[in-house]
Amino acid sequence: MPTIDPARLMGDLNHLRSIGAYKTGVHRPTFSAHDMEARRWLLRRMEEAGLSARIDGIGTVYGRREAAGPKMLTGSHLESQNHAGWLDGALGVIYGLEAARAIAEDPAFADCAVDVVALADEEGHFGSFLGSKSFIGVLEEAEIDTAANRYDGRSLRSALADVGLAGEPRIVCEKGRYKGFIEAHIEQGDTLIGSGAKIGVVTAIVAIWQYRLVFEGEQNHAGTTSMKRRRDAGLSAVRALARIDERFPLICGERTVWTAGRIALEPGAASVIPGRAEALFQFRDADEATLERLDAELRAIVAEIDMQGPCRASVEVMAQSRPALMDEGLQAAIEQAAEIHAPGKSLRMPSGAGHDAQYLARIMPAAMLFAPSIGGISHHWTEDTAEEDIVLGAQVYAEAVAQALRG
Amino acid sequence: MPTIDPARLMGDLNHLRSIGAYKTGVHRPTFSAHDMEARRWLLRRMEEAGLSARIDGIGTVYGRREAAGPKMLTGSHLESQNHAGWLDGALGVIYGLEAARAIAEDPAFADCAVDVVALADEEGHFGSFLGSKSFIGVLEEAEIDTAANRYDGRSLRSALADVGLAGEPRIVCEKGRYKGFIEAHIEQGDTLIGSGAKIGVVTAIVAIWQYRLVFEGEQNHAGTTSMKRRRDAGLSAVRALARIDERFPLICGERTVWTAGRIALEPGAASVIPGRAEALFQFRDADEATLERLDAELRAIVAEIDMQGPCRASVEVMAQSRPALMDEGLQAAIEQAAEIHAPGKSLRMPSGAGHDAQYLARIMPAAMLFAPSIGGISHHWTEDTAEEDIVLGAQVYAEAVAQALRG
Repeated sequence: MPTIDPARLMGDLNHLRSIGAYKTGVHRPTFSAHDMEARRWLLRRMEEAGLSARIDGIGTVYGRREAAGPKMLTGSHLESQNHAGWLDGALGVIYGLEAARAIAEDPAFADCAVDVVALADEEGHFGSFLGSKSFIGVLEEAEIDTAANRYDGRSLRSALADVGLAGEPRIVCEKGRYKGFIEAHIEQGDTLIGSGAKIGVVTAIVAIWQYRLVFEGEQNHAGTTSMKRRRDAGLSAVRALARIDERFPLICGERTVWTAGRIALEPGAASVIPGRAEALFQFRDADEATLERLDAELRAIVAEIDMQGPCRASVEVMAQSRPALMDEGLQAAIEQAAEIHAPGKSLRMPSGAGHDAQYLARIMPAAMLFAPSIGGISHHWTEDTAEEDIVLGAQVYAEAVAQALRG
Repeated sequence: MPTIDPARLMGDLNHLRSIGAYKTGVHRPTFSAHDMEARRWLLRRMEEAGLSARIDGIGTVYGRREAAGPKMLTGSHLESQNHAGWLDGALGVIYGLEAARAIAEDPAFADCAVDVVALADEEGHFGSFLGSKSFIGVLEEAEIDTAANRYDGRSLRSALADVGLAGEPRIVCEKGRYKGFIEAHIEQGDTLIGSGAKIGVVTAIVAIWQYRLVFEGEQNHAGTTSMKRRRDAGLSAVRALARIDERFPLICGERTVWTAGRIALEPGAASVIPGRAEALFQFRDADEATLERLDAELRAIVAEIDMQGPCRASVEVMAQSRPALMDEGLQAAIEQAAEIHAPGKSLRMPSGAGHDAQYLARIMPAAMLFAPSIGGISHHWTEDTAEEDIVLGAQVYAEAVAQALRG
């Protein structure tokens, strides 16, 4: 049975936390100087762990070991959201590295390999899961050509050139090499913390159905245009969103979430009737039937608003992903590992956030282990997890990887 | 009876239209090169009409005649909204100039004076009614110090220096000089066009009660935060605006209008629950009791949203002007003039838009005459009025000024 080294684990996590430290969190956006420092540091730590490591042409850090027997893939991502938490991504990478070390140190696993990957830009500074897509072989050069930093508009090509990765080959995962992939991550919600559980066993990563709702009216003077005559696109948007608020709770799933994250009125001035309005609206669920039901309801609401007038209303689909179901065998491995080190303290749950595992699941069995987030806080520098929970999670994780190797 | 010269009237309006022409409208923002060209041209036309004219330190063009008998003030504003109509403001200034000429040419009015003023920046490129406030003596130097262009941020002081007006004295209207002020303007709505009337007799300029509605929730992850736990400030804003939409129609006045011109969610990203939302909301009416009733209802709705949670909701008053009642005697003068030149074709109505007359009304009897707007279009380069309506309106206007002089 592999045994992790808590001091080594916490030493690595704390070292990573020092690179781009921001208050009690970190600021390590993809391809920033601190992000590259973290990638190069991880490369050295992989080599010190006996892995053969490289940083590829999209920034993914990949360490592997040659072995005749079963092999598992571990890891997560290394960059952070802006001014965000120290464990989001980093926890999964260092859990993978620690599991690789602990299992390599256990003679019972001498024929096995535990490889580690830090997939670039999961946080989407330049695109959507660029590292994962590249690693599973579905990232086209054309997508790299057009990708740009969402905050400052700098092109991905120029960012890659600046950090010395232009022209470097991209690594595509060797087919059939792995029995599976297990990603550890902080929960980013309060389900574990709220229930006293220590280990989340992810059943599925929810799908995100993202829409742009568009309302077209007539821009006009807010003083001289009577209520009867005006065609206020902003008001139509409010009516549509209010109906969603009334009707979605009647037909949603137990864990469905929906959000209008942005409402933009044009021209957006106090004394001008909005001629056009747009709302970004999304919902998430792990169940396909629920997703389809909400999609139909959304379209019905917008069609009503359009028909009732006075504005035109339409729905544009921006993204409709599929839920990524986690592998049953790997879920069982995580549960068994939890029973050894934290009996009665594991909980099956879906992931409401997207993760690299949803892409890896396309080419191999994949699963996820969640560690508790204090207060459920995420994407903020106050995000944190108790040290005893970090250490316990790492031990369960290493055991789960070991169980999967022998499973 | 003074008689206007249609060719001279249309010649002046068309010349003005050529200064800063944009499609069929004009682009003459305050203190632009074309705006200053228009002001200097107006100064010369005033002098040619026998007026003693000046451009003062805030850009207002003022032409006056010495006379022992009754005096009336006429005019409006000269600058335009960006890429907007050719008659908004210009019509009232040239009506004033033509009335001054026609009345000066009538020997029966030899003892009278009709002065003309083009009050600077009614359109608010730099502030709120700066020219009118200055002319009635309530514009402080401190307000000029802090005013800046709302589009490019250039300070008013620097704009005044660039056009050579820095240090020029500002003209304050001589107390007791005038029997009153009549401002002509295009209607900017479709009441006249819709009813076949040719002359609007403005009863009051509505008050604008402008608010900022603020909703404070908790910014969080749109995937991992359950519907029960989240505090979505954008959703609270939608609920408040939807209740206004339901309840204002039940208690509003016949001509009340209300508008949410801007809704801003923070941070405004697809996958982030808005932690804060703001809406700019206003209503307008000419009746004080109606304004007070709507204010109470708005506060009740926001208080409900605040009490029901999960977000805090509050109301900030940005502006609560008083309705400006037009002088009864001057309204009667306009109606009598209309009965002479357009019998049965005048209509009493409030003005839903703000106008210079609301400031002049603070220091003398004031009234407004509206000419029809084709399609009710305003603040757009397609704004227009039929030439026969322009000419008819000018004749009624000159007659109304004459009636007021002798009234």
